Amino acid sequence: MVDFKKLREKNIFLTKKRIRESVSEDDFVIHTISNIDELAKITNVLTKRLRNWYELYLPEFSKKVSDNESFVKLILRKKRKELTQEMKLKESMGKNLLNKDLKPMMELALRINSLYNLRDELKSYLEEVMNSHCKNLFTITGTLLGAKLIEEAGSLKKLAMMPSSTIQMLGAEKALFRHLRTGAKPPKHGIILQHPLVASAKKANRGKYSRSLANKISIALKADYFKGKFIGDKLKKELEEKLK
Amino acid sequence: MVDFKKLREKNIFLTKKRIRESVSEDDFVIHTISNIDELAKITNVLTKRLRNWYELYLPEFSKKVSDNESFVKLILRKKRKELTQEMKLKESMGKNLLNKDLKPMMELALRINSLYNLRDELKSYLEEVMNSHCKNLFTITGTLLGAKLIEEAGSLKKLAMMPSSTIQMLGAEKALFRHLRTGAKPPKHGIILQHPLVASAKKANRGKYSRSLANKISIALKADYFKGKFIGDKLKKELEEKLK
Repeated sequence: MVDFKKLREKNIFLTKKRIRESVSEDDFVIHTISNIDELAKITNVLTKRLRNWYELYLPEFSKKVSDNESFVKLILRKKRKELTQEMKLKESMGKNLLNKDLKPMMELALRINSLYNLRDELKSYLEEVMNSHCKNLFTITGTLLGAKLIEEAGSLKKLAMMPSSTIQMLGAEKALFRHLRTGAKPPKHGIILQHPLVASAKKANRGKYSRSLANKISIALKADYFKGKFIGDKLKKELEEKLK
Repeated sequence: MVDFKKLREKNIFLTKKRIRESVSEDDFVIHTISNIDELAKITNVLTKRLRNWYELYLPEFSKKVSDNESFVKLILRKKRKELTQEMKLKESMGKNLLNKDLKPMMELALRINSLYNLRDELKSYLEEVMNSHCKNLFTITGTLLGAKLIEEAGSLKKLAMMPSSTIQMLGAEKALFRHLRTGAKPPKHGIILQHPLVASAKKANRGKYSRSLANKISIALKADYFKGKFIGDKLKKELEEKLK
């Protein structure tokens, strides 16, 4: 007679093993890039609050420094007096707050700064993972764009199996289906528009450039997924020459 | 002849002075309570990401602890081995990650924990401000509800000038105007529903209870705004006796 209890245990054991082994570098890439995007939104919300709050204290400074990250770092590093002197301001419109009213906003600034640091750490971690996981793709696209492509596709395998025309359109699904439904103009590129070679091109050339870029990405991906040789350098050079 | 240049300078000086003097404790209350609300949303987003990420490593634990804050604090305090033993788990479905892949998620957990701490600091700061700014209101409503009422109204002055029926409806504007427009049922309470006396009441009593609560709040506010005596204790006792 078959021992069902043993069979069941063996089955559960194997399933757990399979689940455990299914964790791959794709997961790290996807979580990291998603978190980087979330952090960008979150630091924006928090810095907006911090600016409004700090404007009670020194409104002129918030108006002067428009970059969020430098704003946070500067108010953490310098006191009000220093900042007023640097701006050559005789007298600020802000109220000179007591320490107890200043503390909560400075604590907020500390947290925002620490979130900026986390973003930088995540970026360098992502670079490391991409470099070992898909070196060819990484060489052509850089860290963030490559990771976003994997995120859009769901995994390196799925991305590697896509025709280059699909890679070209990844992230432009809305425009693509609008084209198919209503006959509006088709999109020329999805997120690969972020690549410096495409982004810096003239508008008329962007379609052509994205096609060439997607072609090279597609070749690089095959080499990455099937553990081929490192050809990223060569592909990148070819691309740069073509698009000169 | 009038010296226009001097006049202009004097004018700017006075305007700046007025702006400076317009900063009041209302501003601190409103920024702090808004920031507390933002932090609640942000920590939720980040903990959701952390859970998904950590589930690659030890999925059983994330399923077991449903409270976000305790989840973050526990994975920071205890190692995987401890947690597995506590759950009496022979073997986890998660992958035993390398340190380098574990580090980014632990860094994220540290940031989330630090945001929880900020929320606690802001709450005690807010309590302090409310206690000196509007002690009567604070005694009846507690920190968060009182601050939210000021936030909804825009300032303590505006809130103090409102009839108690408006205070009762603050935060339920959408339902109120739907009632006026379409004749749907009128709302019985706005955010004052959060008060423990109303929240714990039977549904049929909530309308009556919110009316009594709004009445007392309205009296307390007049005493706060016109710097009257401290009557919060008395009002609170009356209210509790009435709603017994």
